[in-house]
Amino acid sequence: MKKYQLMAPGPTPVPSEALLAMARPMLHHRTPEYEALFVEVRAGLKRLVQTAQEVIPLACSGTGAMEAAVVNTLSAGDTVAVVCAGKFGERWIEIARAYGIEVVALTAPFGETVPAARVAETLRTRPEVTAVLTQHSESSTGVLHDVRGYASATRDSAAILIVDAVSSLGIADLPMDAWGVDVVVAGSQKGLMLPPGLAFCALGDRAWRRVEASRLPKYYFDLAAERRTVLRNEAHFTPAVSIVVGLREVLRMLEAEGLGNVLRRHDRLARATRAGVEALGLRLFARATPSPALTAVHAPAGVDSEAIVAAFSADHNITIAGGQGEMKGQVFRLGHMGYAAEFDVIVALAALEQVLAGLGQPVDFGAGVRAAQKVFADRG
Amino acid sequence: MKKYQLMAPGPTPVPSEALLAMARPMLHHRTPEYEALFVEVRAGLKRLVQTAQEVIPLACSGTGAMEAAVVNTLSAGDTVAVVCAGKFGERWIEIARAYGIEVVALTAPFGETVPAARVAETLRTRPEVTAVLTQHSESSTGVLHDVRGYASATRDSAAILIVDAVSSLGIADLPMDAWGVDVVVAGSQKGLMLPPGLAFCALGDRAWRRVEASRLPKYYFDLAAERRTVLRNEAHFTPAVSIVVGLREVLRMLEAEGLGNVLRRHDRLARATRAGVEALGLRLFARATPSPALTAVHAPAGVDSEAIVAAFSADHNITIAGGQGEMKGQVFRLGHMGYAAEFDVIVALAALEQVLAGLGQPVDFGAGVRAAQKVFADRG
Repeated sequence: MKKYQLMAPGPTPVPSEALLAMARPMLHHRTPEYEALFVEVRAGLKRLVQTAQEVIPLACSGTGAMEAAVVNTLSAGDTVAVVCAGKFGERWIEIARAYGIEVVALTAPFGETVPAARVAETLRTRPEVTAVLTQHSESSTGVLHDVRGYASATRDSAAILIVDAVSSLGIADLPMDAWGVDVVVAGSQKGLMLPPGLAFCALGDRAWRRVEASRLPKYYFDLAAERRTVLRNEAHFTPAVSIVVGLREVLRMLEAEGLGNVLRRHDRLARATRAGVEALGLRLFARATPSPALTAVHAPAGVDSEAIVAAFSADHNITIAGGQGEMKGQVFRLGHMGYAAEFDVIVALAALEQVLAGLGQPVDFGAGVRAAQKVFADRG
Repeated sequence: MKKYQLMAPGPTPVPSEALLAMARPMLHHRTPEYEALFVEVRAGLKRLVQTAQEVIPLACSGTGAMEAAVVNTLSAGDTVAVVCAGKFGERWIEIARAYGIEVVALTAPFGETVPAARVAETLRTRPEVTAVLTQHSESSTGVLHDVRGYASATRDSAAILIVDAVSSLGIADLPMDAWGVDVVVAGSQKGLMLPPGLAFCALGDRAWRRVEASRLPKYYFDLAAERRTVLRNEAHFTPAVSIVVGLREVLRMLEAEGLGNVLRRHDRLARATRAGVEALGLRLFARATPSPALTAVHAPAGVDSEAIVAAFSADHNITIAGGQGEMKGQVFRLGHMGYAAEFDVIVALAALEQVLAGLGQPVDFGAGVRAAQKVFADRG
């Protein structure tokens, strides 16, 4: 028996509380039962996003919500600056260009970040830039970008800040209102520990004013229309009912743990993972602030990272992820977000030790686990 | 104890086979396990849509797939004809106009239909019409439009036929290739008996040629990009994994029953429902071919149909639906699609008898049930 373990950077495991709630008989979305559910979920999402704004749910994946953020706040011919140091940064560029938006690409090598000073400088020298688009956690590289710094640059400019928080909501601190982030985009399958298929957009007042001026066509992703129905506590189109049912459960779990504790848990899991990986002589891919959601790791010299991913699956029934795009073969990624706890990290590192040895690498058995244990033992 | 029963025209009940499959630990979508699942699901969807084309899954509700059909096959400034005799016909018009498409509205009073001859005449007199958009089953009125007739009109013209089959796939016969339908749009939460959040587009060769010429912006709903990844048996963006897992189960159930039997079951349930409702002295809303998916019924004179919906829920724990838009208060709707069987109709009619009596209407108890029983007894 090999117990199946999902340790990829999303979708993440779903707690049985949510799985069983979603396995109950289907609710209809135009009933008092769904209304009561939606009231609770709306309030919980606001607390999680740390905003007084409505957090608008959309039946789509995170990419759909990224597109919603663009088509609602921008117009063809606008110019945006995109923080691009990974595959999801490239996705912002692709979405913007698909809609006829000019892109000033603030690129950095994958694994690095773009300093806030460079964003501020861009806003000074390129006054035509009306929005800055970034990831918070870049899932392809395991880097956490300086959203707080970007927000302090955009807040005093005419540009709005649009943040893809798909792999940071409920994982890394992102107080939307306090930092002055204009748009937060998130998804269900990362920190929220749910199946994919539900995503979210929260817009601040400056962003809502942009919505009034936006001339890009939209219908399914029309956030102004969505907000009108959300404020009536109704669904505009048929919602992803079962995932919303699961959302109530996970929001209750997160509230019971407390957001501060949730964020500290992710930080601890990430530090332990990094310590374990480095103790095994491996090199982290992130050369900037690492994300608390996942750890991207260089494969040892001469080893194809896809072979590591395959061995995790074939030998240990554990799903991790390889590198995306140009990082394929170079990098493997360990997720430690959402429904993830200390002993999951221990399992991942123990499996990594076995996998490396199986691939003929020299391994000091227990060294990775020991380093993680020391992080966990330090409760200071 | 009042057993909860969902008898609305979608979302419909989900069979426990699918609920329990979806409650299993989350799969990752870039694994051999998911690939094997997707191979099976792709083949099953083709058989269900009766097409040799790929049936492209999208993580969204049916409205998202309607929008995908429009933005991939049309361009701003194009002119389309829309069959509009209900709320979902109006939705086609709204989507088209949102994208700068001119609309020739072929309207009929709600409850009626648009004859195929009128579509053919429109194509003759308005050669600028490049597409005809219609519902197959119009869920707001319970009418089945003559898609076969529309297809025979469009097939020999330059216009393509785009059919919203959200509440007809797996319910009413729609042999896409045989009839020459160019685009079929469907959703997960009706005949497929799944939670909402997964939708589908299937395009014929003429429609794919339109995709090459379409100049409307798109990214999340870029069907050409989706098809390229589907043909590699991969997901483009994160799919609605759990619903795809459920899809495998329901496709197996539908295959075991046989599509012909599935369609005959729906026809029988619909005939029994109509017979029962009429035996109780109520009047059907559909004045054209009724849909096998649902039955829309006029409330008795002097009775608000919302009171009927409320009594089903409060007194019997049964969710049915009221009228939408201008039909609110006038009409109630009974769903009998998807995971629906003969004794569900008996329960719905028995409850209707109780509800009508509770609202002070004269009721011949058993008359509705008796009429349905006679339909079921006739196996000829």
